[in-house]
Amino acid sequence: MDIRQRLATNLRRLRLEKGWSQEEFADQAGIHRTYVSDIERGARNPTITVVERLARPLGMSPSELLA
Amino acid sequence: MDIRQRLATNLRRLRLEKGWSQEEFADQAGIHRTYVSDIERGARNPTITVVERLARPLGMSPSELLA
Repeated sequence: MDIRQRLATNLRRLRLEKGWSQEEFADQAGIHRTYVSDIERGARNPTITVVERLARPLGMSPSELLA
Repeated sequence: MDIRQRLATNLRRLRLEKGWSQEEFADQAGIHRTYVSDIERGARNPTITVVERLARPLGMSPSELLA
């Protein structure tokens, strides 16, 4: 699995574990909902700074989100 | 330490442990030497696909490189 797909799978799983919609999560991460949707489909190649923003509301490190 | 600085510090340490110059490492990663230099100064915000390319010649996962 390539790294974009790994991020996609992890993000979707962790967001759903929190019971958050994409929109709720996007608001917390400070990222547009469509961008979250694209990342969860593996359709984006985000920078490490974006990964840091995704990880924060999940209470995880960027490294864990890519593991 | 922000994620760019963490990547910078890890990359520099691991590259030097291998005894590689920035140019030798860049050749193996398939990335321009000046881009490697910028990353090692924390002056770039690379995508996760670039982190994957950096990790490969070091025999590490992208996640480990950001840990």
